[in-house]
Amino acid sequence: MNQKMDEKWIVGVDLGGTTIKMAFITTYGDIVDKWEIPTNKKDAGKHITTDIARAIDSKLEEKGRLKNTLIGIGMGAPGFIEMDTGFIYQAVNIGWRNFPLKDRLEMETGLPVTVDNDANIAALGEMWRGAGDGAKNLLLVTLGTGVGGGIVANGQILHGVNGMAGEIGHITSIPKGGEPCNCGKSGCLETIASATGIARIATENLQAHTDSRLWTVYQSAGMLTAKDVFEAADENDAFALKVIDEVAFHLGLAIANLANSLNPEKIVIGGGVSKAGDTLLQPLKNHFKTYALERVGAGAEFRIATLGNDAGVIGGAWLAKQ
Amino acid sequence: MNQKMDEKWIVGVDLGGTTIKMAFITTYGDIVDKWEIPTNKKDAGKHITTDIARAIDSKLEEKGRLKNTLIGIGMGAPGFIEMDTGFIYQAVNIGWRNFPLKDRLEMETGLPVTVDNDANIAALGEMWRGAGDGAKNLLLVTLGTGVGGGIVANGQILHGVNGMAGEIGHITSIPKGGEPCNCGKSGCLETIASATGIARIATENLQAHTDSRLWTVYQSAGMLTAKDVFEAADENDAFALKVIDEVAFHLGLAIANLANSLNPEKIVIGGGVSKAGDTLLQPLKNHFKTYALERVGAGAEFRIATLGNDAGVIGGAWLAKQ
Repeated sequence: MNQKMDEKWIVGVDLGGTTIKMAFITTYGDIVDKWEIPTNKKDAGKHITTDIARAIDSKLEEKGRLKNTLIGIGMGAPGFIEMDTGFIYQAVNIGWRNFPLKDRLEMETGLPVTVDNDANIAALGEMWRGAGDGAKNLLLVTLGTGVGGGIVANGQILHGVNGMAGEIGHITSIPKGGEPCNCGKSGCLETIASATGIARIATENLQAHTDSRLWTVYQSAGMLTAKDVFEAADENDAFALKVIDEVAFHLGLAIANLANSLNPEKIVIGGGVSKAGDTLLQPLKNHFKTYALERVGAGAEFRIATLGNDAGVIGGAWLAKQ
Repeated sequence: MNQKMDEKWIVGVDLGGTTIKMAFITTYGDIVDKWEIPTNKKDAGKHITTDIARAIDSKLEEKGRLKNTLIGIGMGAPGFIEMDTGFIYQAVNIGWRNFPLKDRLEMETGLPVTVDNDANIAALGEMWRGAGDGAKNLLLVTLGTGVGGGIVANGQILHGVNGMAGEIGHITSIPKGGEPCNCGKSGCLETIASATGIARIATENLQAHTDSRLWTVYQSAGMLTAKDVFEAADENDAFALKVIDEVAFHLGLAIANLANSLNPEKIVIGGGVSKAGDTLLQPLKNHFKTYALERVGAGAEFRIATLGNDAGVIGGAWLAKQ
């Protein structure tokens, strides 16, 4: 056994629509063990807290540890959360509606529970142990199927008056005539800079660029993905580069406008699309620089997120530690 | 004498390019006495701290009070400030460059001094005793010669990594082909929604609207002001209403985008232009609603600032009280 027997652990939990990521984490942010269990959405998600409690108990047993090793649980969940009470108004992907998450999980585990939004705990994770490098003013922008975000200011996550702070994906990039967004508005950043948005922009403009290698990909696969666009750009495909430049323009403008208001030290780009690395980061930095105040630009550093899927459980542990 | 003799006071100081606003304020935010002294910019502003110290002493004498009545000074200053040390990198309007404001003023007065940016202390003032009504998540947008701002989140003013947070006036509203801004960029919100910007937009488009009463005003005065535009709008002048709607569109979009990230409870509009009241607020709210997430819009209330010129000294006192 590597760990000292008197070492205390925190449980980090990151609830997703398909799996629940869990980890035992030291008070210094080191992962002792991590594992996943399936998200059981039966009966409007009422079994989830029991599943988590059971998973904690069996992992403790496996490690030969007693319950008093654990000092608390920090959990990230999707949806609208009332911070003080850990009450979930609505989490569409899970099936919860008016679900007292904190109370239920505390009852089932006997441990103190802290709950926050999943994008927010990822930002805290990156701040503590990831690309944020301890920066107390940090912006996390997650580019995946959608566009999410978490804002850390003065070392605290911002929630706003009713838990909506950090909804960076719904900054309006195209005020008139933009694409409809899942949120009910149109022209949101999410309709452009998500994996879905990038694929859509490429597909919509493909007819006029049959010389592009994306045309060939489309002909054989019947569709385009964001990954296809970045791969073509890496091969210097002019059309793919143009699509990425358009995406980077809207993303750079939105982030610069936010940075002029928040003056972050680190701007961390996460999510699946961030795997594109410099192919996205270079044009993004250029457009950002055009629209950020000089002193704001000088104070901000772009980074690709480093924790990947562990950001949530580590951020959860940080939250519980506070 | 109305005040109890054992009551403690805080000194609020709001430094401007022309005058220094000063006040003795109770720990509950009530103004005991307020007054102004001229801003002495001679010798690169080196006499300012002595002037403030002297003004405090003579006002104390006038009130028949001893120095131990005062518990500290909270001061707002223009320019770039290092928060921890109260060091002013640069305040162009005053003449300061690398000026140790906090240290100097503490030395001259023997009182503890807290310094912050002038727009920030105005936001704190409105939060504490003005239109903010104690809201812990508040956005102050000041529409004057320029456009300034202060952001309160979780009850704290945001400064960012190098004191630039809240520079709402330099959100880019027109990414391509916008008007040059004093900051060196172009198309900033300040070029549109400031008093200067409103007058400029009206003047530039006047030739095509000789039926507007603004044309008559321009013919006789040789120029237009923002006040002229709002007055014409109040008389239902179609061109003036169109100019205000354009301004309100850009302002509403910028504030909604910020609100989607910060989720404020109160959005307080201050500065000279805010005197237009509902003539500005109505179209502003409409455009805001189009671009804010529904739940963000539901959580936010627009208010006109109520403290006027007292916001700075009251916010300064709040800062010193912390």
